[in-house]
Amino acid sequence: MVERIYLDSAASTPVADEVIQEMLPYLKQQFGNPSSIHSFGRETTRAIQQARRRVADLIGAKPSEITFTSGGTEADNLAVKGAAEYAKSALGKRHVITSYIEHDAVLEPCRDLERLGYNVNYLPVTAQGSVRPEDLKGALTKNTALVSVMHANNEVGTIQPVKELCRIAHKAGALFHTDAVQAAGKIPVDAKDLAVDLLSMSSHKINGPKGAGALYIRHGLDIMPLIHGGGQESELRSGTENVPGIVGFGKACELAAKNLAAYQKHVSELRDYLIGKVSQEIAHSRLNGSTISRLPANAHFTFFGVNGEDLIIKLDENDIAASTGSACSVKKQKPSHVLKAMGFSYEEITGSLRLTLSMQNTKEEIDRTVAVLSSIVRELRALSPFKSKYT
Amino acid sequence: MVERIYLDSAASTPVADEVIQEMLPYLKQQFGNPSSIHSFGRETTRAIQQARRRVADLIGAKPSEITFTSGGTEADNLAVKGAAEYAKSALGKRHVITSYIEHDAVLEPCRDLERLGYNVNYLPVTAQGSVRPEDLKGALTKNTALVSVMHANNEVGTIQPVKELCRIAHKAGALFHTDAVQAAGKIPVDAKDLAVDLLSMSSHKINGPKGAGALYIRHGLDIMPLIHGGGQESELRSGTENVPGIVGFGKACELAAKNLAAYQKHVSELRDYLIGKVSQEIAHSRLNGSTISRLPANAHFTFFGVNGEDLIIKLDENDIAASTGSACSVKKQKPSHVLKAMGFSYEEITGSLRLTLSMQNTKEEIDRTVAVLSSIVRELRALSPFKSKYT
Repeated sequence: MVERIYLDSAASTPVADEVIQEMLPYLKQQFGNPSSIHSFGRETTRAIQQARRRVADLIGAKPSEITFTSGGTEADNLAVKGAAEYAKSALGKRHVITSYIEHDAVLEPCRDLERLGYNVNYLPVTAQGSVRPEDLKGALTKNTALVSVMHANNEVGTIQPVKELCRIAHKAGALFHTDAVQAAGKIPVDAKDLAVDLLSMSSHKINGPKGAGALYIRHGLDIMPLIHGGGQESELRSGTENVPGIVGFGKACELAAKNLAAYQKHVSELRDYLIGKVSQEIAHSRLNGSTISRLPANAHFTFFGVNGEDLIIKLDENDIAASTGSACSVKKQKPSHVLKAMGFSYEEITGSLRLTLSMQNTKEEIDRTVAVLSSIVRELRALSPFKSKYT
Repeated sequence: MVERIYLDSAASTPVADEVIQEMLPYLKQQFGNPSSIHSFGRETTRAIQQARRRVADLIGAKPSEITFTSGGTEADNLAVKGAAEYAKSALGKRHVITSYIEHDAVLEPCRDLERLGYNVNYLPVTAQGSVRPEDLKGALTKNTALVSVMHANNEVGTIQPVKELCRIAHKAGALFHTDAVQAAGKIPVDAKDLAVDLLSMSSHKINGPKGAGALYIRHGLDIMPLIHGGGQESELRSGTENVPGIVGFGKACELAAKNLAAYQKHVSELRDYLIGKVSQEIAHSRLNGSTISRLPANAHFTFFGVNGEDLIIKLDENDIAASTGSACSVKKQKPSHVLKAMGFSYEEITGSLRLTLSMQNTKEEIDRTVAVLSSIVRELRALSPFKSKYT
């Protein structure tokens, strides 16, 4: 059997062995409810405390600034709705600013805020997928409660000028949230240096288990909870804690911090090798996004004259896992809102392919991938109505 | 080393070995994002489908009626707020009825609805902790959107007349939700027979992993989502699915269905043995709750002249895990709202102890527990200001 090649690490990652080993005791022997005061409960309370420290350490925060959630999406919802609702009730502010290239986990809560009577502005981006500080300046008003701009884009990998955007938002008296789901653990992220008020993280993007995530909430900041009940997580997120998930997430953060330099080196070298090889071997292809400010594991191309969905299916038949963009929106079959915001034509969007790398990927895998990709692109172009244009 | 005795199964349970075995592949090899269209994604999509069938089977529902959540608390929040918000926007109804003995996962969302301008009625209960159908009849109005009454109480174990309450609610044109977190998998629960519109379930109460739960939503019923984003779970619950958690929950439901009769027999026999022994050996003790309509694993006592918190701590020192009531509220040190609603005096509440059993508990454990309990109660009473009254 051929080993499958996985080039979709931005969608999800396998749980590291060391992470699984730390989780297992909390499934079987140490199963107490952390809210219980007996020894079974105290064991899991301690485990959560350790995980909280590890998560905090990855982003230069204090443990008390970490609120565990069921994942990045819930963290984004809690940040956006929790901050907006608090600002409305405490300050009467009803204006939120975000960007057109956010993940749906930020865009959809923003749309829900609009339904609830808030006013939301969506910032445009450059052709490389970057939010312009001057656009934020122009959008801010005295009524702005919150600005939410992602740390790095999940489709094209463009890293946003978060520190500068945050400074601008603060000057105007607005809070700043960043969705760091694709950044934390993959590039250096320091909440204090960025000076953000809220920052979302996810476990399963960095070799932790699915079902765990966290929201960094700057010390002293009040927001409204989204899920009410027993008052866990300092009243901010009720529900019995997902102890094994949280423990695994903590370990994944510890490993990510330890391996960050090696990870960045490995994936960026491999990515550059991939980009070089594609540009040499496949005509009428183009790298999208920024060449300077980019996630080290992200390569995003347009192959003119082919359909990205067809590419994915053919790659899959060849045991290579890739994506056209966000996994979450693939099944909806709607054209990428990120590429649209970057000004891409229909053809440029249609021909797009995202390859995202990990420590486990090798040069041999890249060689095989580019060889397969090259022949698939040739084959698809031969069937295309634009045949004469690209062959 | 002495084996610890765990008598707090209503708070949480260990994950069954067969459940862990089914989960493991979804941590390590089959880690795809279910939204991905490649083979890694299709594997996890299939796993979720199988789990959905198993969860549905436990409560006599169709798979399409099951929405996975991060746990029972989120399911309760989604049911209460999702149904109330939909009813407000579609029908202009702003009235909700619940009971005083609900879990905080229902009570707190109801309080949040009050903050949002809804009108909420809280039904009283009998001295045994049962909601009276006539009280519900009296509270319903044409403006009532939703009635939420739990299937079985988490503290005293009283099973509510859900089917009858649901019939009454429907007659008045209101929806009916039941929090079946303590019931599903422990007593027969059939969503179709009960005719409820919404029913919450939890994984970690039935030897599945923490971090997974589900909301049954009757076919054709519309409610509003709580967490917005990528549109997973038919747009009702966004966020990358907790695949290992969902798979484990599915297996736990399958096992619970298979073992239900044996479970009920084992724990109810053991409970009756425990109740008999306590009443024989410990004077001035009383069983609380219903003797007829009661969860098979629940025993809830008042030991007059002692403090339940002291009991728990002394039991813990003797390697016996017990609870005064809901794990979620223990740390808050507030007197049980359930026992208050049952009309208990301060002394009756203070002296309360909950022991909840499982398949793993044995007669020998009960013998040791009652012996320890008996000596602790004697010791504590000797120190009590009410000494002369109870010794």
